[in-house]
Amino acid sequence: MTAEIVAIGSELLTPFRQDTNSLYLTQKLNLLGIEVGFKTVVGDDYDHLHSVARLALERADLVIFMGGLGPTEDDLTREAVSAALNLPLRRDAALVAELYSRFAARRMKMPENNLRQADVIIGAMPLPNPHGSAPGQWLQGSFGDKEKIVILLPGPPHELKPMFENHCLDRLRAKVPAQFIATRELKVALMPESECDSRAAPIYKKYRNVQTTILAGAGEVQLHLKTVASNPQEAQARVDKLADELEEELGEFVFSRAGESLEQIVAYYLEMRGATVAVAESCTGGLIGERLTSISGSSRSFRGGAIVYSNDLKKEFADVPLAVIAEHGAVSRETAIAMAEGIRRKCQATLGLAVTGIAGPTGGTQEKPVGLVYHALADGKKTEVIKRNFPGDRSRVRWWASQQALDMVRRKLV
Amino acid sequence: MTAEIVAIGSELLTPFRQDTNSLYLTQKLNLLGIEVGFKTVVGDDYDHLHSVARLALERADLVIFMGGLGPTEDDLTREAVSAALNLPLRRDAALVAELYSRFAARRMKMPENNLRQADVIIGAMPLPNPHGSAPGQWLQGSFGDKEKIVILLPGPPHELKPMFENHCLDRLRAKVPAQFIATRELKVALMPESECDSRAAPIYKKYRNVQTTILAGAGEVQLHLKTVASNPQEAQARVDKLADELEEELGEFVFSRAGESLEQIVAYYLEMRGATVAVAESCTGGLIGERLTSISGSSRSFRGGAIVYSNDLKKEFADVPLAVIAEHGAVSRETAIAMAEGIRRKCQATLGLAVTGIAGPTGGTQEKPVGLVYHALADGKKTEVIKRNFPGDRSRVRWWASQQALDMVRRKLV
Repeated sequence: MTAEIVAIGSELLTPFRQDTNSLYLTQKLNLLGIEVGFKTVVGDDYDHLHSVARLALERADLVIFMGGLGPTEDDLTREAVSAALNLPLRRDAALVAELYSRFAARRMKMPENNLRQADVIIGAMPLPNPHGSAPGQWLQGSFGDKEKIVILLPGPPHELKPMFENHCLDRLRAKVPAQFIATRELKVALMPESECDSRAAPIYKKYRNVQTTILAGAGEVQLHLKTVASNPQEAQARVDKLADELEEELGEFVFSRAGESLEQIVAYYLEMRGATVAVAESCTGGLIGERLTSISGSSRSFRGGAIVYSNDLKKEFADVPLAVIAEHGAVSRETAIAMAEGIRRKCQATLGLAVTGIAGPTGGTQEKPVGLVYHALADGKKTEVIKRNFPGDRSRVRWWASQQALDMVRRKLV
Repeated sequence: MTAEIVAIGSELLTPFRQDTNSLYLTQKLNLLGIEVGFKTVVGDDYDHLHSVARLALERADLVIFMGGLGPTEDDLTREAVSAALNLPLRRDAALVAELYSRFAARRMKMPENNLRQADVIIGAMPLPNPHGSAPGQWLQGSFGDKEKIVILLPGPPHELKPMFENHCLDRLRAKVPAQFIATRELKVALMPESECDSRAAPIYKKYRNVQTTILAGAGEVQLHLKTVASNPQEAQARVDKLADELEEELGEFVFSRAGESLEQIVAYYLEMRGATVAVAESCTGGLIGERLTSISGSSRSFRGGAIVYSNDLKKEFADVPLAVIAEHGAVSRETAIAMAEGIRRKCQATLGLAVTGIAGPTGGTQEKPVGLVYHALADGKKTEVIKRNFPGDRSRVRWWASQQALDMVRRKLV
């Protein structure tokens, strides 16, 4: 079964807004074994919408329309899809009653326009929307001589997602051949995509029935594995076996086995080891703290720390001797070590983590160019340092530095 | 002139990747007076691509194809568009020579496949690509009985953007009626979208020839103004006049007059006033520091600060008396004040900024629910406090808290 996703709304044809629902829907559809063949974005224009709907009905077995179900004149999805299907609209009495009681409950008079939200394509089933006033619609029918499924969903994600999960997923599952899909996601830190692929390809290419997608982001590479089998155990065993082989090849570079973020993994290991961490951040300016505290419950393992942008604050908060900075510079191996050891003592943490570097675009020199970053991790016995030269702009350098720093904590605790 | 943007690539039909080039292209096209009528995403499938190309050529005056120009078997854009136009491909001798010399320079033998990148649609002009091996193409011609413009661009943003700017913009400008478009963008902090719109609507509705788009994000509302006139002065004067009226109505809530971010504005005012700021962050965990230091040159006005997740660090780094915390709690007006005043002294900054709250999802109580945040700003004379109850999840509460805190600094300095 092939699907087409049609996003409706003139705002989606401006430079400011983008359809993101389709990523969510694609994920859910893929897990049922349904591939997305086309995605289309069209404005609030009846003729455009009508022609897009006709075309989608011709080329896909399942068409999901999102948006344009509200009460205003701009909202034309019902009318255009009904015309494309050659099926008229009927006004649903139960939906009309619901709209009236909705407004009555708020002691408001309902504008006439709102009744359009009770219009349902003949043969379609209305889908309740507890999070908004526009119901969705589900329709199975023949278009030309083929069986098609048509779904109308509201545009706002917090209305669309529960409606799709509660009212469409099971119905779709009943329409597709029983098959079982298993997925795995490995994440690799701080390895170039080309190296990761050249090491992984000889392995995943042996698994012709597992689909492997490699995606590189900032400071990490994701390996998405997916397979289809006739029973769930077989599907799971197949992706697990490939994941195990990949993990063996990529070794400690693999930080996540089920899609977790690096900060989630670090928080997990800290708790498991009963350890705590404190940070002294110069060029990252709070980013490492922000990432660690984005995890709920992080106060159990994150002590806190300091953002030490100036030399005197490196001394004040992280006990860095000013003589060390004077001799080696604020961006140096020695200062990074002193920061990590100092913040660990000050915060009485198991581990002290420090970053100092030049994020750019200004401040670089011949000897210490933009992108140079020192990362240090102190555990009270020995202090490790990693020096890196990151390419890219300020935000990229800062992000990679936070990746490198968090990865040092992970490797220490694994 | 109406445009259609076609993004090509099977990875854009997975849950993991999304076309973002179209937002950039839409912005550039809009500034020429060209509206985008449709956006389509299609996979690396010859038949699909061919039918999408035919349809786009029928319904749009300008069709921009992005991606599928590489050397592999998957890359079918040249072939499919050539067939849709009924114009054959020719192998361009100069491009062939360039490909050979490219490989020779790296002392590599060129795989035969790569020659496909030298295939150009008859009548099209190749567009040089200094950032990759796939050239683009520009073609004007008649399709059916209408004049059309067809552009083929590579998919990677760092190849697409310079190619479009250097080789397409001027050519397009020559094709559209001379018109002048002026835009303005106002940003409003910490006002609900509905309130902003109900105050702004009576004003912008008077300006029938200015298109106003209101977008609400996390903790801010953006007002995008756009107008078309026959000369640039008139266009600019028109959006400026509306912007002035809106600013007068919305007053100090307007933090940006030209689209700058809140942290950019704060950095600007700090420098202008010769002031510095230091932060003591509890629930935001480093986010405020991260935002302030995302601006290049921020070390001139940002001193640094502390992430004080635990009570003892509030004392250690921000001099908060433990008695204050014992009496009022870590999340309280009194603790926020002590944090702001303490971090200001410790860091010898002009201003001390502090945030303490409950980001959730756990840790809330009847008396102090999730979303409760105290924000304090000390200047050495008096200390302001703002208490807020933010709705939403952990990341939303933290983001809004950082917006509120930065906005306090802005208002103090304006």
